[in-house]
Amino acid sequence: MKFKIESKDLHSSARAGTITLSRGEIETPIFMPVGTVGSVKGVSFEELKSRINAPIILGNTYHLYLRPGLEILKEAGGLHKFMQWDRPILTDSGGYQVFSLSGNRKLSEEGAVFSSHIDGSRHLFSPENVVDAQRVIGSDIMMAFDECPPYPSDYSFARKSMELTHRWLERGVCRVMQTESLYGNHQVFFPIVQGSTFIDLRKESAEFVASQNCSGNAIGGLSVGEPAEIMYEMVEIVCSKLPFDKPRYLMGVGTPANILESIALGIDMFDCVMPTRNGRNGMIFTSEGIINIRNKKWQTDFSPLDNSGTFNNGFSYSKAYLRHLLVAGEMLGPIIASIHNLTFYLWLVREARNKIISGEFNSWKNKMVKKLTTRL
Amino acid sequence: MKFKIESKDLHSSARAGTITLSRGEIETPIFMPVGTVGSVKGVSFEELKSRINAPIILGNTYHLYLRPGLEILKEAGGLHKFMQWDRPILTDSGGYQVFSLSGNRKLSEEGAVFSSHIDGSRHLFSPENVVDAQRVIGSDIMMAFDECPPYPSDYSFARKSMELTHRWLERGVCRVMQTESLYGNHQVFFPIVQGSTFIDLRKESAEFVASQNCSGNAIGGLSVGEPAEIMYEMVEIVCSKLPFDKPRYLMGVGTPANILESIALGIDMFDCVMPTRNGRNGMIFTSEGIINIRNKKWQTDFSPLDNSGTFNNGFSYSKAYLRHLLVAGEMLGPIIASIHNLTFYLWLVREARNKIISGEFNSWKNKMVKKLTTRL
Repeated sequence: MKFKIESKDLHSSARAGTITLSRGEIETPIFMPVGTVGSVKGVSFEELKSRINAPIILGNTYHLYLRPGLEILKEAGGLHKFMQWDRPILTDSGGYQVFSLSGNRKLSEEGAVFSSHIDGSRHLFSPENVVDAQRVIGSDIMMAFDECPPYPSDYSFARKSMELTHRWLERGVCRVMQTESLYGNHQVFFPIVQGSTFIDLRKESAEFVASQNCSGNAIGGLSVGEPAEIMYEMVEIVCSKLPFDKPRYLMGVGTPANILESIALGIDMFDCVMPTRNGRNGMIFTSEGIINIRNKKWQTDFSPLDNSGTFNNGFSYSKAYLRHLLVAGEMLGPIIASIHNLTFYLWLVREARNKIISGEFNSWKNKMVKKLTTRL
Repeated sequence: MKFKIESKDLHSSARAGTITLSRGEIETPIFMPVGTVGSVKGVSFEELKSRINAPIILGNTYHLYLRPGLEILKEAGGLHKFMQWDRPILTDSGGYQVFSLSGNRKLSEEGAVFSSHIDGSRHLFSPENVVDAQRVIGSDIMMAFDECPPYPSDYSFARKSMELTHRWLERGVCRVMQTESLYGNHQVFFPIVQGSTFIDLRKESAEFVASQNCSGNAIGGLSVGEPAEIMYEMVEIVCSKLPFDKPRYLMGVGTPANILESIALGIDMFDCVMPTRNGRNGMIFTSEGIINIRNKKWQTDFSPLDNSGTFNNGFSYSKAYLRHLLVAGEMLGPIIASIHNLTFYLWLVREARNKIISGEFNSWKNKMVKKLTTRL
């Protein structure tokens, strides 16, 4: 993997770069659509490749491990072949899901024993077998297994948790060194900074993570309920400690405004279920603000979903029509909303990139954040 | 509306023709995807126009009348503008839905008073206001309001019901004459043959319907639970009485085999929810037979959904992948299944047309019906 920074904003820490993986190039900053169980919910691969034009998508080790399971994925020749997606895939390690989705989990130095949210069956995730699972999946970017403390956490819990994540990280790095790709593609490994909302822990964790000298670095444990200002504070501190010349990935973030603010702090990669999950429930992101499309006020508004003229994804669907579909429970509603929102997110990070390159990023960002947070 | 018969099979009553409407041409025999509430469930208009290439779709007056409602459709300038679909639309009259979906209905000479299946509100459908509703919808082919008797019905009920449907038809024809299109497109009106499973009633109804001299004629009240052999018998009798030079539409039919057999009896138009509804539940139609994709036997079958080589809709999705999506409850599963099945149905009627023109229809049909009914 290569990462080349092409442009650096003068008035913020934003940068524009290119990640080169064996399966393709990714211009940064980038937003990665979430394909939890081997599909981006409601979105066909044709749409992902053409209209949305996502250069990379996310898969979740936890979900894929449970369903379809590693045996089937191995027999298919990996997740790419199974899904027929030939661009890069990043897989989450499952750490977050083990702590948020599964029941009855038991944490030890060894790893986490948990119950499947599907059938209650018991499983162990360890720093080693999570690497092994990602080898079977064949993702281009693998993530380290971490513990994700809830918000708020008290200091001693957060410290112990961070230290465990660090020891797990060393074991994960070790496993990556001892194993290799099953399908010939080069797989890189990103460690995850933890430390909850404590400045000294975040610094310590960022320094530890940086010392592992991996191809890129991630920030976890944010956007879990803390105020946005605290999140930005943590991101800023961590970015100051992470190497400049490697991509920085802020996990699970966030709203369009969160993304622009975090780009300004030096983040290069994002993922979030918000455009698809909130889209399915009728939240439509536009360049002029946020629309709750189920609201009666859109009932006879036959204008396009985003009628600013700046953002156009080629959709001719009107607000009134999408509202009708969602209210009537028609499947096409969530489909259109998901595709629209993902196109918008990808457009937004591409615009940010263009503005970084043209030197206008910071003023554009400040103007956009105001619009993006408006409720229409 | 024009209907030109281009070819007639020598060994059956099958024919190949072209219906010309102001919004486009429809080569027959044709299958019309069902877009009940203003969308074909799970299928984008891009897919409908490109991969599926449906020249006409169906809308349901009952559903559209309740949601989004006629006021919104009128303000939008009709259903075509509301959905952004510029090809022809045929609307069902709502007769079938009033008798199958709504509750607490009360039938009288005037019409049918029913309770909405959505909120229980009371409404009256009459032969006249159902024409008015279809004027507001702006469909290219409007259907007469009819009573659809259940199967089995006794003779005296079926006769009374048929006679009511005939009186309603005369009132509907009258209303069509007294009103005109609201949006400038030419709208035609199809009457519906009823008569349950009684030969003399079907003959009488077909003769009455033929005497109305409408642009095309439909057969209703079949595929409601009766054995397929009885359905074919009724279709054959009715086709012998309906004018040769006008399109014949068999409503709500059916399986791929039903469609081929009915084409052989002289039917030109079909609609059915089967490809989408059964698709959502995992029933996949292929040129080699029917697949229950949820079956464990497909778990590691990475071959295409239809691997006969004759039918190819450009999908690269495998059986194992589609199975995984449906078992995991991923929205993309129903989407892929619906698009696959609709593409298959449209391919099948186009193949039938080609075989009629090339003079090979009957032998091809007999060979295909065997394959199509095979459970793989």
